[in-house]
Amino acid sequence: MKKIGVLLSGCGVYDGSEIHEAVIAMLAIARKGGKYLCMAPDMEQYHVVNHLTGEASSEKRNVLVESARIARGEISDLKNINAVDIDALILPGGFGAAKNLSDFAIKGKDADIHPEVHRLITEMTDMKKPVGAICISPVVLAGVLREKHPEVSIGNDLGTADAIEAMGGGHSVCSVDMIHVDKKNNLVSTPAYMLGPGIAEVAEGIEKLVEQIFKMF
Amino acid sequence: MKKIGVLLSGCGVYDGSEIHEAVIAMLAIARKGGKYLCMAPDMEQYHVVNHLTGEASSEKRNVLVESARIARGEISDLKNINAVDIDALILPGGFGAAKNLSDFAIKGKDADIHPEVHRLITEMTDMKKPVGAICISPVVLAGVLREKHPEVSIGNDLGTADAIEAMGGGHSVCSVDMIHVDKKNNLVSTPAYMLGPGIAEVAEGIEKLVEQIFKMF
Repeated sequence: MKKIGVLLSGCGVYDGSEIHEAVIAMLAIARKGGKYLCMAPDMEQYHVVNHLTGEASSEKRNVLVESARIARGEISDLKNINAVDIDALILPGGFGAAKNLSDFAIKGKDADIHPEVHRLITEMTDMKKPVGAICISPVVLAGVLREKHPEVSIGNDLGTADAIEAMGGGHSVCSVDMIHVDKKNNLVSTPAYMLGPGIAEVAEGIEKLVEQIFKMF
Repeated sequence: MKKIGVLLSGCGVYDGSEIHEAVIAMLAIARKGGKYLCMAPDMEQYHVVNHLTGEASSEKRNVLVESARIARGEISDLKNINAVDIDALILPGGFGAAKNLSDFAIKGKDADIHPEVHRLITEMTDMKKPVGAICISPVVLAGVLREKHPEVSIGNDLGTADAIEAMGGGHSVCSVDMIHVDKKNNLVSTPAYMLGPGIAEVAEGIEKLVEQIFKMF
């Protein structure tokens, strides 16, 4: 049974993992006969956003603890997971990818990547294992794999596409129900809620992403 | 386009809505061509559980604010929703149904139901509109509809089944991939994570529940 890591960044689109994207990926993995292994870094969130008002609150929350909500408690500290433990890795989107796993939301093309995220993605690509990135999370791949010129898609947002290219990556326009494949680096990406418009369209792209990862084994 | 209310109770299986069940229901509604309308009561959670350790924390969180994470911010205060606004209603599971929407987790068969939850479910059944209940949430229907003898299933847990019968309801054993239909009261239930064993099996039952609701229109 193939083990697919799911790298979470909190629980909620504005300050963590986009919940629909994470759950749809987990369901697609299970339906392909695989096993998902959730993981997240043990760190304080960049901030906490009240998802009703959209405003930042004064609360403090931990990325691993909040990610455990999506994982129903079955989750590993990212620092304990190595590429030998999994056959592929998927990064759901949500602002957590750009605020916790990296600081892309603040620094754009000059983003730093969380060191454990950097380590695991580097290990995965060194071992030629597939990595899937959903929504905004291709920027994390671009930030890690600069010299390998990763080819990804986040849909059609020009500012984000320009930042990916400034980091050394390539960007292709892609629709929400489709995927972009980088055969050289074994990467798959899909725009999901970078484009919307709704959960059904987002699910089509994510299901194709998981399907493609299983083809890469 | 049919509008299906999704009544949330927080965000996370141990103190709110079970996230997988809620998202799978929302996806199934969209794929049937329907529109989901998320709602939750504006109230403090019974408590907050650290989903990594399983222990209660000293934090305070609000059910509507946390439910907004699953709804991506598009959610209504339950008190502003009436049965005329929706064609059907679905209650995902998670302990939030038994700790926030009701106090079944504390008082069992003597549970009180949140007054706005009681009002909306009563209005729905008075108007003969379908109501779906996932996982533990059939206990909420049993608590509201005592005199109407609702027929539901939460799987095969004897203690919970006994409590449902003590409240005036009927309980049938049901497998995770199946549904139980109460034609008299227009209710549909599926055990989901009351039985597990995994997200793929849970999704089968929830998709059948949504399918059945669309057949009832």
